[in-house]
Amino acid sequence: MDKLTTTLYDELRRIPLIDPHTHVNALDPASHRLDDLLGYHYYTELAHSAGMDKALLDPALPSQQRMRSLADHLPLIENTLQYSWLLEIARTLLGFDGERIDAGNVEDVSAAASACMAERDWEEQVLRAGNIEKVFLTNEFDDALTGFDAGRYVPCLRTDSLVFRLNDTEVMARLNKSSGVQVGDTGSLRRAIAALFERFVKAGARAAAISLPPSFQPFPERDESAGPMLAKFLDGQEMTSYEVRSVHRFIFWTVAEFCRDYRLPFDLMIGVNRGVYEDGVPGGTDLFNHLTSLHQYQRLFNAFPTVTFPVSVLDGGQNQELASYAWIFPNVVTSGHWWYANIAPTIDRDLRQRINAVARTKQIGYYSDAYKLEFIAPKFNMYRRVLAAVLADDFVIARGWSEEKAVELGYDLLRRNVERIFFGRES
Amino acid sequence: MDKLTTTLYDELRRIPLIDPHTHVNALDPASHRLDDLLGYHYYTELAHSAGMDKALLDPALPSQQRMRSLADHLPLIENTLQYSWLLEIARTLLGFDGERIDAGNVEDVSAAASACMAERDWEEQVLRAGNIEKVFLTNEFDDALTGFDAGRYVPCLRTDSLVFRLNDTEVMARLNKSSGVQVGDTGSLRRAIAALFERFVKAGARAAAISLPPSFQPFPERDESAGPMLAKFLDGQEMTSYEVRSVHRFIFWTVAEFCRDYRLPFDLMIGVNRGVYEDGVPGGTDLFNHLTSLHQYQRLFNAFPTVTFPVSVLDGGQNQELASYAWIFPNVVTSGHWWYANIAPTIDRDLRQRINAVARTKQIGYYSDAYKLEFIAPKFNMYRRVLAAVLADDFVIARGWSEEKAVELGYDLLRRNVERIFFGRES
Amino acid sequence: MDKLTTTLYDELRRIPLIDPHTHVNALDPASHRLDDLLGYHYYTELAHSAGMDKALLDPALPSQQRMRSLADHLPLIENTLQYSWLLEIARTLLGFDGERIDAGNVEDVSAAASACMAERDWEEQVLRAGNIEKVFLTNEFDDALTGFDAGRYVPCLRTDSLVFRLNDTEVMARLNKSSGVQVGDTGSLRRAIAALFERFVKAGARAAAISLPPSFQPFPERDESAGPMLAKFLDGQEMTSYEVRSVHRFIFWTVAEFCRDYRLPFDLMIGVNRGVYEDGVPGGTDLFNHLTSLHQYQRLFNAFPTVTFPVSVLDGGQNQELASYAWIFPNVVTSGHWWYANIAPTIDRDLRQRINAVARTKQIGYYSDAYKLEFIAPKFNMYRRVLAAVLADDFVIARGWSEEKAVELGYDLLRRNVERIFFGRES
Repeated sequence: MDKLTTTLYDELRRIPLIDPHTHVNALDPASHRLDDLLGYHYYTELAHSAGMDKALLDPALPSQQRMRSLADHLPLIENTLQYSWLLEIARTLLGFDGERIDAGNVEDVSAAASACMAERDWEEQVLRAGNIEKVFLTNEFDDALTGFDAGRYVPCLRTDSLVFRLNDTEVMARLNKSSGVQVGDTGSLRRAIAALFERFVKAGARAAAISLPPSFQPFPERDESAGPMLAKFLDGQEMTSYEVRSVHRFIFWTVAEFCRDYRLPFDLMIGVNRGVYEDGVPGGTDLFNHLTSLHQYQRLFNAFPTVTFPVSVLDGGQNQELASYAWIFPNVVTSGHWWYANIAPTIDRDLRQRINAVARTKQIGYYSDAYKLEFIAPKFNMYRRVLAAVLADDFVIARGWSEEKAVELGYDLLRRNVERIFFGRES
Repeated sequence: MDKLTTTLYDELRRIPLIDPHTHVNALDPASHRLDDLLGYHYYTELAHSAGMDKALLDPALPSQQRMRSLADHLPLIENTLQYSWLLEIARTLLGFDGERIDAGNVEDVSAAASACMAERDWEEQVLRAGNIEKVFLTNEFDDALTGFDAGRYVPCLRTDSLVFRLNDTEVMARLNKSSGVQVGDTGSLRRAIAALFERFVKAGARAAAISLPPSFQPFPERDESAGPMLAKFLDGQEMTSYEVRSVHRFIFWTVAEFCRDYRLPFDLMIGVNRGVYEDGVPGGTDLFNHLTSLHQYQRLFNAFPTVTFPVSVLDGGQNQELASYAWIFPNVVTSGHWWYANIAPTIDRDLRQRINAVARTKQIGYYSDAYKLEFIAPKFNMYRRVLAAVLADDFVIARGWSEEKAVELGYDLLRRNVERIFFGRES
Repeated sequence: MDKLTTTLYDELRRIPLIDPHTHVNALDPASHRLDDLLGYHYYTELAHSAGMDKALLDPALPSQQRMRSLADHLPLIENTLQYSWLLEIARTLLGFDGERIDAGNVEDVSAAASACMAERDWEEQVLRAGNIEKVFLTNEFDDALTGFDAGRYVPCLRTDSLVFRLNDTEVMARLNKSSGVQVGDTGSLRRAIAALFERFVKAGARAAAISLPPSFQPFPERDESAGPMLAKFLDGQEMTSYEVRSVHRFIFWTVAEFCRDYRLPFDLMIGVNRGVYEDGVPGGTDLFNHLTSLHQYQRLFNAFPTVTFPVSVLDGGQNQELASYAWIFPNVVTSGHWWYANIAPTIDRDLRQRINAVARTKQIGYYSDAYKLEFIAPKFNMYRRVLAAVLADDFVIARGWSEEKAVELGYDLLRRNVERIFFGRES
């Protein structure tokens, strides 16, 4: 990095983070051993894709053996940015000073990890080192929302299984139990969802969220037509794909109505196809289809002007749509750089289109999507490096902005907009 | 900008502009007060999207109050390039030397603007400062084409309402009146359109133009099948969407035939969805759907080899198609960077793909799309900065071209190709 | 290029090339006169698109006249990278030291070319100058595979006509003759294809390959349903487009089965529409439709886990899909930068997405697609310049890699992966 970018990067790192989307388990947020890091799907899926037999990842195997097998394959993926997150953790948190992690040193790294992670205040250490203040969770609708520091971990109601999987008897049983409502028709479904929202909002939830397939196109379904289809769906009857989609749309729209009534932002994560690679490792089977458009969400955005929709797209090619919809719709906000688009060169392109065209208050710069606290900082650092370079090029150099002014813009993207959008707070 | 880029930029600014697409009103081309600048849809839509109540933009409100409300929201969008155009106007034309325009100084800026714009030769000043020689208009088919300097303002026949809105009785009445033909069938429609072309060409028109929705796919309709559908359409009868599309295609194809007969280039501006955000400010309701392909225009490009089609695309992701179609089809020309793609980082990507792969004579570098003369220069300057950087990187540095040779290439894109394509002139 | 990039570029040029996809004729691989270079479709199609009358390219015209006509138009396309390949050949192989090739000097260049190319060891000179070790061919199924140095030229079975054109009686006659099987049903078709694979593998073929239209979506067809349709197809009967597509899918799937059985990688070149510009010059009529997704290949990739699919996409907008599918599927490999995506700025974007996210062993950096040996080096050099800059920026500078380590990564992309994937060799 050149000097200006380095200066800006250092300033951006001083901003305390609120990570607005993760999969961290609030009851067990940090890692206990290297295996917890290596088990992140990015490493298992990349190693498997590079030729590693899935059998070597069997959870029934001794953890040391699994780690050695994986470490054996790390050199094949050391060019990836995903691997660079692991290396950064090893270097900044575990005292590692080697050039690469491989089968030759994984035992040492593992021993160092176990020692560090056994320290009583490891969670605190990780948060402090990363300058991380708050972490959003992604909760199933029946998650317990107690037993953790609600000032640090912020619940978020994930609605994928509600919208798409109520025909699964196990999901239905969980819904009935957690809501206390016996769901059988549109009315009882609404009461059940109301109970969930009530519970989540009381527990401090700040958002609802859902991931959506590329083909999804929400519009309202009337109760009279949706009702009978819902009944068949809950009953597990055979249905046409049109009927199934109608039920999905009906429940989705109902969730959006509750977001409106409970004043919760609704995170839309658009574009994932589940289970594309059938024989993939856990977490490594989903892909996407770039043939999807935000135009499919026109009716939703118009129908809920008071609901803020932080929108993530999976294909970077859809980013110009996202920047343009956020430019026009008051309730559409750009949100982070998701999954397959979360690679520095793609972030660079996508960020430049957003930061130069969308109101500064309408951009959630980044979220880590992490499963373990240790990954939050290296992922945010990747983003902050790109952001620092963009602020340097497009603002300080191209428009003559002062460094302070540029960092203020970065502050909006990294923190202030998260506070505005999810906490209703101006700072 | 580095030294080489600055040198090239300065040279590019010495090229007198012909702006080949604007919405300037030739009878009232320049602004009279700051309100005319702030009323540009880019500012009202961005401010509204950033939270400004539409009611504050009501034209019935006093202009000073409307300006103050808008200025209040300008700091929220000062990161945008759209805002940078306004700031550049204030600095270069209105003597403003502050860092930002906001509620604290908008009255001063407004007073300065009113004073400047009241000068008798303001229009001349703006043109001279911007080194602007000619400006293309976008005329409705019944616009008067008199009362302005035809050496400076070049008429262009916009055909959107002809192709898509003849079922509107008001549009139909205007057509009947302006063409002197009572339109009722394919024959009379052709005679009416012929009358329009005749009048426009006599008045010095140099192009026909149309904006098209993403789903549009032109192909010829036979008179026998189109005739009855056209009759229903003109009569305002209920029709299937297939029939409506057939009528649109028929009229579009007919317009293309007249472009051929009258030797007018036909500007295609591809990909806009109208009225997507229903509650938007005027001019701030349209968006796009990136699922559209130039492959839809295959039959058109083949059928009219003598008609030049300057093509603009709304989604930057379609730019590689555009570059490739212009690379292959003699009658397809790349044209500017339109609307949501008219942001420096998108221009940068799109320009690099075009300038490195398409014949130098087949690229119309830029048009301003401006409604008021003041915006032509800052928008062109944004483009010229990108162009200068691309010429520096990809030609002077990467290929060892001399600066003179690189500027000559820029001359083609900025001016010579406009003369070639619209005026049939080699210079 | 800056110093670091230049150093890396020089190192990358020391790696002996294996070009894994060309259209070189092994029996006549190098050019005999300038006309052979100028006749490359890139020049004829660009010149024609820039206004050159097709009649001037008539093969019946004297070659000198054809060259002069083309040279007349070269200045119109001298901004293109395609032209830069020609200029590089002239400068590095033909002793040309002018600034541009045009009508004024084409006779001299032609004389120089004829003299050079008449040298007995011209082929050797070209290979040596370009540091080219092996060159893959693209063979029709009935090509003779003898008469050339099989250590240098590697056969590859192109299957386009098998899959899409068996309803052409001439193709069918060739198949019957070359396979020795009278094809009439699914069984005899399989025996015929088996014979082709047998012959190709014996002759040292290292891949099968096919180019596919954007709409293609492979899945298995049962013999019982495919059989009757295949019979109609071979018989030249009228069929619905659904039936035709079913036959295409059936044959394609069968070819994939033989790739599995004969352990041949299957190059998929996805996205071309043939004959889009009807009046184009030979080789200059095909284009693409960016509305296509790798999701269409989900069943194929799942069904053939032991077949390696080197995948090329025509639209750069599909590159993120390609990088992501290669990231997840063990049998999907990124392959080169094809045709309309083979332009430095597009390569730059696409390469950065791949090299930062896909295992280093799963990326075939580049192939030349050349028809004549002379074009291999300048096309690879264009790629190597981009690769050197990416290695400098994203690895040496951004991640602190040593230059040696960065070059090693380049070695994987330029050579080692070709050896791994097509020759099953680890080096």
